Amino acid sequence: MHKNFKNIDKIVYGKGAFSQLNAIIEPIRKENDKFFVFVVDKYFEGKELANRIPNRDEDLLIFIDVDIKEPYTEQIDNLRDSILEKKGLPSGIVGIGGGSILDIAKATALMFTNEGSSTLYQGLDLIKKPGIYHLGVPTISGTGAECSMTAVLTGPEKKLGLKCEWTVLNQVILDPELIASVPTDKWFYTGMDCYIHCIESESGIFYNAYSKAYGDQALQLCREVFVNEGRGQNDENNEKLMIASLFGGLSLTYSEVGACHAFSYGLSVVKGYRHGIANCIAFNHLKEFYGEAVDEFRNMLEIHNIDLPQNLAKDWTEDEIMEMSKIAYNLTHMWNHAIGMDWKQKWTVEDIANYYRKM
Amino acid sequence: MHKNFKNIDKIVYGKGAFSQLNAIIEPIRKENDKFFVFVVDKYFEGKELANRIPNRDEDLLIFIDVDIKEPYTEQIDNLRDSILEKKGLPSGIVGIGGGSILDIAKATALMFTNEGSSTLYQGLDLIKKPGIYHLGVPTISGTGAECSMTAVLTGPEKKLGLKCEWTVLNQVILDPELIASVPTDKWFYTGMDCYIHCIESESGIFYNAYSKAYGDQALQLCREVFVNEGRGQNDENNEKLMIASLFGGLSLTYSEVGACHAFSYGLSVVKGYRHGIANCIAFNHLKEFYGEAVDEFRNMLEIHNIDLPQNLAKDWTEDEIMEMSKIAYNLTHMWNHAIGMDWKQKWTVEDIANYYRKM
Repeated sequence: MHKNFKNIDKIVYGKGAFSQLNAIIEPIRKENDKFFVFVVDKYFEGKELANRIPNRDEDLLIFIDVDIKEPYTEQIDNLRDSILEKKGLPSGIVGIGGGSILDIAKATALMFTNEGSSTLYQGLDLIKKPGIYHLGVPTISGTGAECSMTAVLTGPEKKLGLKCEWTVLNQVILDPELIASVPTDKWFYTGMDCYIHCIESESGIFYNAYSKAYGDQALQLCREVFVNEGRGQNDENNEKLMIASLFGGLSLTYSEVGACHAFSYGLSVVKGYRHGIANCIAFNHLKEFYGEAVDEFRNMLEIHNIDLPQNLAKDWTEDEIMEMSKIAYNLTHMWNHAIGMDWKQKWTVEDIANYYRKM
Repeated sequence: MHKNFKNIDKIVYGKGAFSQLNAIIEPIRKENDKFFVFVVDKYFEGKELANRIPNRDEDLLIFIDVDIKEPYTEQIDNLRDSILEKKGLPSGIVGIGGGSILDIAKATALMFTNEGSSTLYQGLDLIKKPGIYHLGVPTISGTGAECSMTAVLTGPEKKLGLKCEWTVLNQVILDPELIASVPTDKWFYTGMDCYIHCIESESGIFYNAYSKAYGDQALQLCREVFVNEGRGQNDENNEKLMIASLFGGLSLTYSEVGACHAFSYGLSVVKGYRHGIANCIAFNHLKEFYGEAVDEFRNMLEIHNIDLPQNLAKDWTEDEIMEMSKIAYNLTHMWNHAIGMDWKQKWTVEDIANYYRKM
């Protein structure tokens, strides 16, 4: 059985495409209680982009600070409940921001139509009904949230996505001008999410010709953006990185993330590291899994003068390390891909803990 | 304004994926008059693949000989009318074959719900209502019909697609095993459709970073299949060619075909050449448009020992040449891309005729 995957319904790509948002959502405004919700990264509050959002009087414009904490189940439940109470069921929800904001839009769209807490739906195909219309506008590139069939949430017990075909966005607006002002460290760490997706995709059993075609092209683009002559943040590379992020995400459609993301989830849940930097902290120690790609990664750190947090484990308690290790160990689908379906015979919580102790 | 393009709703990719057809259409069987139509290339009649089609007693299984003639408007209208008369409105239509069969499935799906002759809808966004569910299973790779938003039909007056977002397939099954038995000349000519899509995509004004990412990867795969060491028809290359075809088609989503397709349409309409070979006949003479790619194309002809029809014009009447030239000239969107929006100031029917005279 091969996966039958759901595409993003519609994509518009190009410089200035954000201006088409109003026209795109206009036909959807007839649905449900006829208002839109815009969830926007708090970073943009008071900035020019916020003034360009086509929100009307009846709409809700909500700025969310995702720097404090990654999206979490209680946050989604509260957001859903407060909107329903205040105004009823929206026509649609638009997320404008990075992977966290896109995941909040995706998760909330689903939770408007699925009862109870989002913790009930963390996992594959647990969602029972399609959500409301949801549209994503990435303002930073690398996460692949613009095309993935998951909305990753941290719950009281686990960090795991609401994963089903209805999670996929109905519409994506890819406007490379929007990522022009991203601070260098965020640009790097989020871009590395894409690089690492490609490396993880190719380093495991689910990799196929479809994943390879997307992954090879995304890697090529990452190298143009982060390694080769002409690298760095500029107009041309913003276009390339935006496409790389999409392709890196699409490479995972048939493949899977692996060891690095498993370690990364443990770091995020227990120590609160944001996803991009958590990936990088872990990837730096995974040469046994990813070979020369780790050298290439270290080269990119050096080229861009990125001061990756290191020697962190000395400040972690043994309890914390075991907690992280158990969280990582429980991400079965990642180890299936990275090590093989018999991974439990080869790989233990203690093996994982030993990697964390080096970080 | 950037194009907001519609994706294929769902894709399943992998060896043996054809076996999933029955399970995929099962939920759709509840719609309309609860039967499916399967349109299948006559080549498969009596062959193993035909036995694997999951048609039930209530379904219609129709073998169509597309070697005689490319899809034409009257054929679509008759197919639609006869099915409606016989059994009513199908739940869905499945096309199993090459680009012609996929276009027949796409066009018929639309014509079930749009009244009158398909000649009324040849062009961009003339279709008024979404069609019925349509699913495509390519058995030869290169045309990009599996992802394009057009269903190309030859009418009494023009060769032009029913082009709108509803034309895009609801589901594609990409099973590389199905293209394993394609005869070498068809494999080559249809594969060259993909190669030429990529070259045309990059040689014109609508090309952008999105088109380039898909086109570069498709070209790389074409070179692995047709040029590099390890080239030729084998399991690995069947996978690559199937992905190349998809990516070449997706490269065109934001870009456009150009001069070669314009010339090719004239050859097909007036002299009946099938699309793949017509492209090749034209491309061979378009060095002024495509430069080194024409040398690479000639190298591929030689490598695969393909005897391209040449010196054809000596048997064409001047009337035929002028008819072809006018058909080509009227493909405005192709010349817009290839030459620029001011192409009418630079390019005449007589210029086109001079190219045909060399073919």
